[in-house]
This record gives sequence, structure tokens and C-alpha cells, in this order.
Amino acid sequence: MSANPLVGVVMGSDSDWPVMEAASKALDEFGVVHEVDVVSAHRMAREMLDYGTSAADRGLRVIIAGAGGAAHLPGMLASVTPLPVIGVPVPLQYLDGMDSLLSIVQMPAGVPVATVSVAGARNAGLLAVRILGSGAGEEAESLRRKMSAFQDDLGAQARTKGE
Amino acid sequence: MSANPLVGVVMGSDSDWPVMEAASKALDEFGVVHEVDVVSAHRMAREMLDYGTSAADRGLRVIIAGAGGAAHLPGMLASVTPLPVIGVPVPLQYLDGMDSLLSIVQMPAGVPVATVSVAGARNAGLLAVRILGSGAGEEAESLRRKMSAFQDDLGAQARTKGE
Amino acid sequence: MSANPLVGVVMGSDSDWPVMEAASKALDEFGVVHEVDVVSAHRMAREMLDYGTSAADRGLRVIIAGAGGAAHLPGMLASVTPLPVIGVPVPLQYLDGMDSLLSIVQMPAGVPVATVSVAGARNAGLLAVRILGSGAGEEAESLRRKMSAFQDDLGAQARTKGE
Amino acid sequence: MSANPLVGVVMGSDSDWPVMEAASKALDEFGVVHEVDVVSAHRMAREMLDYGTSAADRGLRVIIAGAGGAAHLPGMLASVTPLPVIGVPVPLQYLDGMDSLLSIVQMPAGVPVATVSVAGARNAGLLAVRILGSGAGEEAESLRRKMSAFQDDLGAQARTKGE
Amino acid sequence: MSANPLVGVVMGSDSDWPVMEAASKALDEFGVVHEVDVVSAHRMAREMLDYGTSAADRGLRVIIAGAGGAAHLPGMLASVTPLPVIGVPVPLQYLDGMDSLLSIVQMPAGVPVATVSVAGARNAGLLAVRILGSGAGEEAESLRRKMSAFQDDLGAQARTKGE
Amino acid sequence: MSANPLVGVVMGSDSDWPVMEAASKALDEFGVVHEVDVVSAHRMAREMLDYGTSAADRGLRVIIAGAGGAAHLPGMLASVTPLPVIGVPVPLQYLDGMDSLLSIVQMPAGVPVATVSVAGARNAGLLAVRILGSGAGEEAESLRRKMSAFQDDLGAQARTKGE
Amino acid sequence: MSANPLVGVVMGSDSDWPVMEAASKALDEFGVVHEVDVVSAHRMAREMLDYGTSAADRGLRVIIAGAGGAAHLPGMLASVTPLPVIGVPVPLQYLDGMDSLLSIVQMPAGVPVATVSVAGARNAGLLAVRILGSGAGEEAESLRRKMSAFQDDLGAQARTKGE
Amino acid sequence: MSANPLVGVVMGSDSDWPVMEAASKALDEFGVVHEVDVVSAHRMAREMLDYGTSAADRGLRVIIAGAGGAAHLPGMLASVTPLPVIGVPVPLQYLDGMDSLLSIVQMPAGVPVATVSVAGARNAGLLAVRILGSGAGEEAESLRRKMSAFQDDLGAQARTKGE
Repeated sequence: MSANPLVGVVMGSDSDWPVMEAASKALDEFGVVHEVDVVSAHRMAREMLDYGTSAADRGLRVIIAGAGGAAHLPGMLASVTPLPVIGVPVPLQYLDGMDSLLSIVQMPAGVPVATVSVAGARNAGLLAVRILGSGAGEEAESLRRKMSAFQDDLGAQARTKGE
Repeated sequence: MSANPLVGVVMGSDSDWPVMEAASKALDEFGVVHEVDVVSAHRMAREMLDYGTSAADRGLRVIIAGAGGAAHLPGMLASVTPLPVIGVPVPLQYLDGMDSLLSIVQMPAGVPVATVSVAGARNAGLLAVRILGSGAGEEAESLRRKMSAFQDDLGAQARTKGE
Repeated sequence: MSANPLVGVVMGSDSDWPVMEAASKALDEFGVVHEVDVVSAHRMAREMLDYGTSAADRGLRVIIAGAGGAAHLPGMLASVTPLPVIGVPVPLQYLDGMDSLLSIVQMPAGVPVATVSVAGARNAGLLAVRILGSGAGEEAESLRRKMSAFQDDLGAQARTKGE
Repeated sequence: MSANPLVGVVMGSDSDWPVMEAASKALDEFGVVHEVDVVSAHRMAREMLDYGTSAADRGLRVIIAGAGGAAHLPGMLASVTPLPVIGVPVPLQYLDGMDSLLSIVQMPAGVPVATVSVAGARNAGLLAVRILGSGAGEEAESLRRKMSAFQDDLGAQARTKGE
Repeated sequence: MSANPLVGVVMGSDSDWPVMEAASKALDEFGVVHEVDVVSAHRMAREMLDYGTSAADRGLRVIIAGAGGAAHLPGMLASVTPLPVIGVPVPLQYLDGMDSLLSIVQMPAGVPVATVSVAGARNAGLLAVRILGSGAGEEAESLRRKMSAFQDDLGAQARTKGE
Repeated sequence: MSANPLVGVVMGSDSDWPVMEAASKALDEFGVVHEVDVVSAHRMAREMLDYGTSAADRGLRVIIAGAGGAAHLPGMLASVTPLPVIGVPVPLQYLDGMDSLLSIVQMPAGVPVATVSVAGARNAGLLAVRILGSGAGEEAESLRRKMSAFQDDLGAQARTKGE
Repeated sequence: MSANPLVGVVMGSDSDWPVMEAASKALDEFGVVHEVDVVSAHRMAREMLDYGTSAADRGLRVIIAGAGGAAHLPGMLASVTPLPVIGVPVPLQYLDGMDSLLSIVQMPAGVPVATVSVAGARNAGLLAVRILGSGAGEEAESLRRKMSAFQDDLGAQARTKGE
Repeated sequence: MSANPLVGVVMGSDSDWPVMEAASKALDEFGVVHEVDVVSAHRMAREMLDYGTSAADRGLRVIIAGAGGAAHLPGMLASVTPLPVIGVPVPLQYLDGMDSLLSIVQMPAGVPVATVSVAGARNAGLLAVRILGSGAGEEAESLRRKMSAFQDDLGAQARTKGE
């Protein structure tokens, strides 16, 4: 796997890191090189757009974006990149992340965001691996095999717990 | 009142116009010059930011922005303008505008959006009038008086209906 | 800036202060003179109306009102003043402020309340600054510049955290 | 029963009448003299308070108030009268009356509103009858007997339909 | 005031007492003699109906019933008594009392329950006082005066806190 | 199968029949003899309890109960019978059956109601068949086989539609 | 009662055990032999289907399945067994189990799941007892009698607490 | 582009087609060969698992799955394939798709589903194109370019409407 980051993990605020860290860990487990940044849609809008616009050219192939409340980061990035963008609804102190979820998932026709569960950053990382593994070429195939092995493992663990 | 627009009424899609028209009408009733535009956060993100960034310099003093679903337009504009931004949650076919409302109102600390009710575009227009009327100077005072008269009128109508 | 308060910060109960304090702090940061009062819609209804009715004549230009549950204070004040009223939904022990939010934001046509997020008192203060800064005159221009600088600062902080 | 109205049926707008009419009809069925008025909390706030303040002295013994959205009428009336106030959540076009319900029922400690179901104006009328029938004296006793008979009737109808 | 209880305060389980106690205290403040019982709709259905059926004849004039979750107690009592029944939605560990609220307030036409806020037992007690005070006779008048005094007091306290 | 009804299908009002009919039809498809009645928890509470109390002795083995809004029928029946009670949340004009669902499913520990989906009367019928088919004896076994065949059929239909 | 398990208690993860244990305890109280397993719909899908498919032949007569979030276990089991399946919505850290409840109860026509309350595992166990007790034969009759005695006991306890 | 389907579009029932058709159309616009099937999680569970298990080997690289209510199809497929699975919440007659959304998006850690908006099948198709376009190789690059052009087009259309 190349040393250039393939996945960009971004979040609206460093206070989102305790949730978003799980995305980074999942990518690490699969050896996926990635970058982590605070890119705020509301406090640095133009840099945020620049991040999204340049992502594909910089070699990124998937973006994972987490945000809470009126969570605009995933959707705004999706609007300026042709790459798949995965959105993680980060729950705030009130409303249990329902606001974050709806702000991310209810995108208008034309600009999809691949949304995962409230605080589901680990699944965002795993979804990125699946996406990278769905492509052509050896690296993709290798990731796809790793994902299958990972799934076998999940089953094995579940079986053990059930015994 | 100046011939330059003081209020910008924008919406994410022309399909929002049947809802947003009421904002324009309310402004007309108070003789507030305004402009109306489709400015999509998700389909023309940079122009949208340009619209917000330049709004104050172009002489706008309030922005009214309507959007539905994962409604990012009001919040994104608010992030690049020092002007007050009024958000109108436009209801989509499902969820009765609850997604639009939460996507607009639940803005993070630092970037407020003055949110009105679901489909409450008329109130967005009236709120803009109140804001324009709250300032210093003769024009503001005149608008403030008109708003008081308008409120007296509302009462008179309510009283008549009650008879 | 004048020594007379330009903004009235009111709340239905002193138990709302831990939430509402952030509005006062935000106004302080911008040097906006303001007053703070407990004005209960349900326990001192006439004084509450008097507060609203006299607000403009006393020199106030914006009212910030916080309340929880069946939160009637912002809307009732808005009904008797031509000034812009900003409503802060204060969350109670149950329902995460959804009741407060809907009681404030869903105002009938004719009487707008500029609603911010659940417990979003800091944003209420910042919105008041934006409103004061949107007017004509030097003081407004100065506030508008401060707000732009504040926004630049937000971006700078976000960038630093991302490094 | 006295010719003076014992119950005041009020609503925020004449558009609430199609819902609120059922309260009036229920009172008619029990021969309870009542008055019907449009008393808007938001468009004629002071008269609204006057209505509430004078209600007991004018001989009213129960107030039924219907309102929709940010429904402040029942709670505001309850704050200025010692009489029991019954609130009817009138549903608006969006949100199915959930906003109306929460705005009415979630009153702070000290000022109760007896809330019925969304659009439940008939039950508001019947509740007023129960309240009037709970008192001392012959008229109360007569109403209490009528209510028992009415309940027997409901049962009889249900039984018939089940056959 | 008579030594016979005028109000019955009942709840589905003794675990509801920490919430319901406030109803009893409010009644005590007004010197209203009342009884307190556990009367479970689901565990002693017939006695529960007996309680409701005999309430008026035993001299009760108002019933206050608290229950949580699928809260059937207030509605079932209301179905067998001509007295006004006040329902208190007791919140359970999950769902913040929204289930309790809807189970109590959404009664079918014919059988009203006077519903107060989630965990609003104090208001249930105060509503009972208002109902008792709405009737004819000296005792009612005395309670009505006490309620007015109580409301004046609420205002005085609010004013003091605001100073 | 015996000519005595094994399942009682009851509803709070004949207006529930358009929804509840599907339960009866499903039972017919499996040849399960059943009775259909209007048994209102709120309008004929004692007969309702009698219905539940006597159900097992009359030979019923499952009760299906549908109700809407503050839906108390299934839970009240469950409280007086040892038989399994299946609850069908009937949606009213507002709130999409969420009130009916919560009023039925959120039963306190000790008294379960087997709840199906909003308006899911067909599934209530099928669940009754599964319950009858889970017992000992030939009749049960025959129903269990029919249910398996029915499930095979569902699959076959789905496959055909997919072709 | 036979030594072969009659009820299968399964859950998607061993982290569901603190909730699901109450189902097992309720079955123990009635002497119902049962088995407990972790059977994950998402991590061991085929074994999960095998569990469901073979359940009836292995002598199980009821399945109790608990799961949280996008809770697919109860519905998937119901799709491959003719036995009654009881679903327990296990609440996750966010959303208070509303996601679990809707994922379990809103099954499509054809495949019912008997759903109990959020975290209502004790009721799931009691519902299984009712189902086993609804059948023909001595064992069923014995369980039915025990359930009646249990219900009498519930009433006795409630009465004691009320004293 | 190869003549073998790269995307599988599946739905739980042919009644989902009016919603899901938009996914197929979006794929057609980008010339992405795909297959369309009814694959019911609840009516043909094993074939459904076979579909998922064999998908990668058959050459599929993305699966789009639509389902309504207790929507288990997307999550179950995701549990047996290493490919990315996109879930489309199909709204039923009640609850506006909130049940479908939560049943799809709230997947447990380990098994992600890329969820789009309620009825957002067009976005599901576009997300599949983005995923296919994110990989290595010429075909991916070509799709990525097409997606960029498509996005430019969206902007151009929005600009035209705004004129």
C-alpha cells in the first residue's frame, strides 16, 4: 500500500476526536494510510472547500467527515469532490445525535453522503476499507480479502462468546 | 429607502420558491428593497460562499436563506458573513421539516442562524424588517414605526374576527 | 458605544442563568452594554408585557429571551415589541429541550422569534451583535468589523487545532 | 343553570374554529352556557391578559383555550387566572400537533394547564363539564348525574356496535 | 374544609412516589384533605375500577393519577368516574416520559384526562386546587382566593430573583 | 379444528375495523375459528375486564386487541388474563400511530403485550397462528406445518416478482 | 416439564446479557427449561438462520431474541421459523432504544415479531410463559394456572404497597 | 466498461420499485452496468444471504439495497459481503421513513451500511458511481471525471434557475 494517504479523516472540531478516533483505528487495523485533520465547515469554510476540491488530486480516494448538531461538513465536502464521502453523526449534549444524523443523511438529490450510525466512527473506517477494497487491482483485492478475514473473525468471536 | 437591496432572499433550489415567496411579499409590504436568488450550498458551493462573503460590502444588511432536508445554506452563509442570517426550514415530502429545522437551528457556538418556524418564510421577512428597524437613523425608525403599526393592525384584525 | 443598555437579556427563571450567562459573556466580549433580568411570562405576565412594550423606548434594540419547557417568554415579548427578539430554548430535565425549541420556534405568522439552538445562549449573544452591527452608522460598522475579526479568529483557532 | 356563561371557549385565531367547535358542541349537549371568542396571545396580548384576569370575576368558572404551533394562549391565561384552564393543542400543517402539544402541556411548576389530546376539543368540553360537576351544590350534582348518564350511553353505543 | 378527603392521589406503583409526592405537598399547602394510594391498573384492575367507580360517592371531587410507560391508570379511572381526572406522566428510565405523556393525553373522544407535564405532579396538585376553587360555595371561594394569593406570591418571588 | 373460537379479535371502536379486518382474514386463511367484538376499554370498562377474565375459560387461547391513541385495551386485557395478548397499534389522524404504539408496547414488568407494527393487523393474525401452532398436539402441529408452507409461499412469490 | 429446552433466549451480543438476563430469570421462576445463546445476525448470519430453521425441530416452541440499534435478529429468526418470536429492543447509548424498537416492531406483513417494551426482557420471558400456557395438554394448563397465580400475586404485592 | 454488472440493485419487495428506480436511472446516466432484483430478507432469507455472499465473486463491486419499516436487507447483505453496501430507507405509509432510516443506519460496530436519505435512491446510485470512481485504473478515472462533470452541470443548472 502506498505511503500517500488514501483516506482523509476530518472533523469539525477537535472535540469530535474522542468519537472520530475509532475511524482512524479501524483504518490502522487494515494498514490504510490516512491523514487526520480538523476542517471546520463553519469556521474555515474556504479551506474546507479547498480540502474537498483538492482531495482527489492529492490522491485521497475516500473522505470520512464527522460533525455534530447542524452538521454541514460531510455534505459540503461531498458537494466539491467526486470522491465518496462518509458522514459520521457526532452526538452533542442534547438530542442524542438525532440532529447530527438528519443534518448529514438527508442530503438533496445529486450530492450523496454515505452516512453511518450516531457516533459510528469505527464503521466509517470499515466502510472506507470496503470502498477501497471494491476497486480493481491488487491492492483492492488484498483489502477485500482482509475484510473477509475480518468478518470471519467477528463471527468467531461471537461464537466464542456464545459458548 | 435606498434603491440598493438591503436584504438578500436566497434558497437552495427554485422548488423552494412556493415557500420562500412569502418572505419577499412581507418585505414588499414594508417597502424593503431586496434581491431574490437561487444560491445552492451543494451545487454551487463557491459562488454560495462568494455570495455570503460579499453580502455586507454589496450593501446587504440581512440575509434570509431557505433550504430543506440537510439544509446547509443558512449556516454556511452565516459562517462567511458578519451579517445576521435568517434561516427558513423548508419542509420536504417526508419528516415534516423536522430535518430542515434541526439542520438549520442547531448551529455550533460561534456561528448563529436566526431560525424561524417550519415553512415560516413570512416571519423571516418580518424578522428582517425588525432587524432593519432596530438600527440607528431615520430609516430604521421609520421601519420600527411601520412594524408597530403592523402589529396594531394584527390586533385589530384578531379583534374583528372575534366579534 | 453608549452607556445605555442596547440589549436586554431576560429569562423566565433564575435557574436559567447557568445557560443564559453565555449570552451575556458574548455581549461583553464585543463591549455591548446590556441588562440582565428575570422576567417570567407565567409568574409576572403584566410586567413581562411592560418590559416588552417599553423596550424600544428605553433604548433597547434587541431582546434575548431564554425559557424552558412550554417556553412562552420569547414569543410573548415579540408580540408587544417591534424589536427583534432572539429566543434561547433552555433544556429541562426531560425531553432534551425539544419542547423548549418547538415552543419558541413555531411562532404563528406575524410574530417572528429568531431562534437559536438548544442551550445556544452564546450564539444568541453573537446574533445580537450581528443585528446591532447590521445597522447604519459608525457604531454598527465598528461592530461589523469586530464580528469579522471574531470570525477570522474562529478560523485561526480551528486551524491551530488541526495542526 | 345560570344564563351567565360559565365557560369561556377561546382560540388564538378563527382558523382554529373547525377544531374548537367540538368543545362548544359538547358544552351545548350538557346545557352549559358558554361564550366563544378569538383571543390571540400574540396579536392582542393585553386584551388576552385582561380576558384571563377578569374571567373569574365575570363569573366564568373554567376556560378552554385552543392554539397551534408555539401555542401560548392556554398557559398565558392560566398565569393570570385562578380558574382551571383547559388547553387544546390545535395541529398545524406540519408536525402533526406535536409542537402544539408540547407548548401547552410542558408548563413550569406553579401554573398548570389541563391538556387534552391533539385536536381533542370535544374532550375539552367534556372535561369542563366534569369540572363544573365536581363542585358543591345542586347544579354541580345535576351535571355530575348527566355525565354519568352520558358515560352509560357511551357504553351502550359501544355495545351496540359490537353486536 | 371537611375532614373527608376531596382529592384522591393514586399511582400505579410505589416507585412513582418520588415524583407524585409533589402533588400531595401542593395539596397540603392549600389545606386540601386528600388520600394517597397505590392503585395499579395492570396488577389490580378490578379494585382500580372500584376505586374510580366509588370515588364520587365517597366524596372525592378530583382524582390525580400518575403512571409511567404504557400509562393506563388515569384513562381507565376517567372511564368509570364522572369526576375530573388529572394525569401525571411519570418518566421511566428510557424515552424521557414521551411514552407516558402520549399514553395519558391522547384519550379518545368521550373520556378526557386533564394532563400535566412530564413529572409535573406539583402542577397536578395545583390544578386540583383550581378545580376545587372553581365551584360554588364558600370553600371554593376561599380556595380561589388562596390560589390568587399563591399566584401573587409566585410573581413576588420572580421579581425578587430578578433584582 | 374445534368450532369454538380459539382467538378473540377485539377493538376499541368499530372505526378500527378497516385496520383490524386483516387480522380476521389471516386467521381465516389458516382456518382458525375466531370471534370478533367491539370491546372498549374506555366506554365499557367492566365488560372489557369480564371479556378478558373469562377468555381462557371460554376456550380462547389468544386475544388480538387493536386500539388507537391512548390505546389501553390490549394492556388492560393482558392484566386480567393469563393468555397471550397481541396488541395492534391503530393509527389515528395525527401522530402516525406513534402514540398508539407506545401506549401498547411500553407495558410495565409483569404484564406483557405482544405488539406488532403500526396498523399491522395481518401480522397479529399470523402471530396468533404461530402461537396456536407452537403448542403440543396434532392441531398445533398441523398449524405449524401450514405456517411453514405459508412461509415457503411468501418466498416463492418474492422470487417470482424478482424475475 | 420436559428437560429439553422449550424456549431459546438469544441475543446479538454478550453485551446484551445485562438486559436479557431478566428473560431467563422469568422463565426460571416458572420452571421453563430454556437455552441461552449469543446468535448474532450480523456476525454469524448463516448460523443464525440455522438456529432459526432448526428451532422447531429441536423442540423449541418459542424464541426470545434481544438486539439493539438496527436490531435485525428477531425479524430474521422469525423469517425462517414457524414458531412465535418475541423481540426485546435493547437500548444503546444513544436514542433510548427508539431505533431498536422500530427495527424490531415494524416488520412487514407476513413475518410478525411479538415485540415488548424497550429493555422489557422480563416481560419477554413472561410472554413466553403465556404462549406455552395457551396450548393444549396438561403442561400448558399447569403453566396457565401458574400464570394466574403469578398475576394474583402481583395484585397482592401492589395492594400491600398501597397500604 | 465491462458488460458484467458492477452494481447490484436489490429491494425487499417489488412495491419498493417506484422509489428504487431512481438508483437504476442514475447508474444508467453514468453507463454503469447493473442488475436489479427483488431479494427479500424476510421471505427468502437464505437466497438473500447467497446473493450477498456470492456478490463479490460474481464481479459486483457495490450493492444498493432498499427496504422499508424494519428494514433488514441492507444490513444483512453487509454482514456477508466485503463489498460496500448502500442502504436506501424506503418510507412506508406511516412514520415517514423514520423507522426505515433507523433500521438501516444504526448498524452495530463491525458491519457498516452506507445510508442515504429517506427515499434517496438517486443518491444511492450516485454514491455507487463515486465508489466505483474512487478506485485505481482507467475505468475508475473515467467515472471520476464524469462525476466531476455531472457536478459542474448541477451547478450550471442551479445558476440558470437563479437567473
